Amino acid sequence: MSDRYAGRIARARELTAARGAAAALITGLVNVRYLTGLASSNAALLIPADGDPVLATDSRYAPIARRDCPDTELVTERNAAPALIAVAAARGLAPVAVEEHHLTVEQYRELAGEQELTAAGRLVEELRTVKDSGEIALLRRACEITDEALAAALAQVRPGLTERQLALALEREMTDRGADKPAFDTIVASGPNGDTPHHSPGGRPLADGDLITIDCGALFGGYHADLTRTVALGPPAAWQRDLYALVAAAQQAGIQAAVDGAGGAAVDAAARDVIAAAGHGEHFGHGLGHGVGLEIHEAPMLSTVATGRLACGVPVTVEPGVYLPGKGGVRIEDTLVVGAGPGAAELLTTSTRDLLVL
Amino acid sequence: MSDRYAGRIARARELTAARGAAAALITGLVNVRYLTGLASSNAALLIPADGDPVLATDSRYAPIARRDCPDTELVTERNAAPALIAVAAARGLAPVAVEEHHLTVEQYRELAGEQELTAAGRLVEELRTVKDSGEIALLRRACEITDEALAAALAQVRPGLTERQLALALEREMTDRGADKPAFDTIVASGPNGDTPHHSPGGRPLADGDLITIDCGALFGGYHADLTRTVALGPPAAWQRDLYALVAAAQQAGIQAAVDGAGGAAVDAAARDVIAAAGHGEHFGHGLGHGVGLEIHEAPMLSTVATGRLACGVPVTVEPGVYLPGKGGVRIEDTLVVGAGPGAAELLTTSTRDLLVL
Repeated sequence: MSDRYAGRIARARELTAARGAAAALITGLVNVRYLTGLASSNAALLIPADGDPVLATDSRYAPIARRDCPDTELVTERNAAPALIAVAAARGLAPVAVEEHHLTVEQYRELAGEQELTAAGRLVEELRTVKDSGEIALLRRACEITDEALAAALAQVRPGLTERQLALALEREMTDRGADKPAFDTIVASGPNGDTPHHSPGGRPLADGDLITIDCGALFGGYHADLTRTVALGPPAAWQRDLYALVAAAQQAGIQAAVDGAGGAAVDAAARDVIAAAGHGEHFGHGLGHGVGLEIHEAPMLSTVATGRLACGVPVTVEPGVYLPGKGGVRIEDTLVVGAGPGAAELLTTSTRDLLVL
Repeated sequence: MSDRYAGRIARARELTAARGAAAALITGLVNVRYLTGLASSNAALLIPADGDPVLATDSRYAPIARRDCPDTELVTERNAAPALIAVAAARGLAPVAVEEHHLTVEQYRELAGEQELTAAGRLVEELRTVKDSGEIALLRRACEITDEALAAALAQVRPGLTERQLALALEREMTDRGADKPAFDTIVASGPNGDTPHHSPGGRPLADGDLITIDCGALFGGYHADLTRTVALGPPAAWQRDLYALVAAAQQAGIQAAVDGAGGAAVDAAARDVIAAAGHGEHFGHGLGHGVGLEIHEAPMLSTVATGRLACGVPVTVEPGVYLPGKGGVRIEDTLVVGAGPGAAELLTTSTRDLLVL
């Protein structure tokens, strides 16, 4: 096991012991990947509070596990979690802390029949929130690829190109630059479709006078970039310029507020207040942002109901938007790493935030 | 609501009543899509046993829901399932049947604090197993795209092309032909990497003498194609020809066994016995196949532990493989629709099953 994973396992072991559990059973697949490096659609990890971890995956992934986690005990079994509960039972490890936010009710019942369970809480998610330098480097590269790909795709925009064609072109620019794949389904919302934050790009041809919102990101080494820009095709109307300026001001306020120690709700409010003061509060229905890493949406959340706090080394998005029904919308989003104070954040996405007129 | 979705809701309502529930709360996102047409990363559906359904999604998807489900009552709320439990409570609907195989323990607890719950079982998955003609048409098109894209990508194979380059080329051929996107991460496993059923395509250059296993599929209209071929680069060695012939014979046996009424374990055994008789039982570690539709893996499973039965109109994959550690492997997979008897299946993927030598 590399030092990176050994260190993570050691910290998970400490948290397991602190919860009074004899072992933790990790079933969130992203959490298993974080702790072992194994990317699999079927895996689980048993971490004794006092002992070495045991990994389970099925025969499709066993050769990968043997290659990538050569020092970790491996159980090759289709039902990974029950196999590891059997290991825990055989070794007298009780109670076993489980991830109640990942296990389904049905899975939980099966495990609870075999061994005493307790709650692990968001044990691994806590560890994952602050990223180490290796993780930031992967995220930085994911964001660089995204910036470059967006620029290359925007150079191809012309009236008549469809939303879908633009989305595909952008995704190809990302993989051409080394992205594993798109981090999520690319959003291209043009003209009136811009009123829908998560519009699925379709056959609408781009037209002069459109605002075009593009929400995209590259996946690189398992890490997710997240970038949104709204651009104008042809000279924008006054309402389009005004809307853009409003959202840009809100985003700037959000970025300034996203500092070490700030509450997720306070950061959201910093941007939301700007939009509300302009009379568009009802047109900004989603949260301001979210953590990014091995998942595209992860802790901490920036929203009206967020309860967590930011810390140095936490990557988050800041992405206010205003959506006018039937008319269109603007969203501006960057991925940044929280720093010690205002201006100390590292912006990982660096595409210009001025309104681009194509 | 279109007749398609109204019919599905009506059947779900009957199953809800049959379970003695006053309503069903559907939280599996694919199930919500099946019943309403809404594709969202955050949605839930309340189906009263006696009354009209209520859909919940957040503001990002609300415009899409209003457009695609104009006749369905909509609640716009970030926490979709709790919002619908509140609706059920306000209307005195108890108990509410929930999907215990989708709800996490944490989600379940939150809902159980608000209203009496009971088990819905795999209510919607049951409905989804047999596909209607519209679904088969989408799946057929997904498979056609996949066949055509594979042929176009194979024409580009030459020594020196990397696994990753081939995977990307294939995925682009799919989207060029109208695929929404790849149905799953394309597998290209060349030479010794072929010993890993779910190898992630990397930088290994294809070389003369390789067997190359390519597992791919197009997503079209929400439906997933699944196709695997192993091809030879340059004249294959005797062991490669023999291995291919063995897997092809096993696949043929599986296809012949996949008929209306057959048990999933019996179909698996029909193919597995061929491989075991050749002394390779231990080198075929995964199940023979699985249902496909709105998910790439769905009921019914074909495996040693499968308990279900096939029926006419059920699309499944048949995909035996033999993997020789350190040496390589062969897998041959088709997507087919089960018919009344041997030979009555409709093969949706039609790429040649003879060993292609490139």
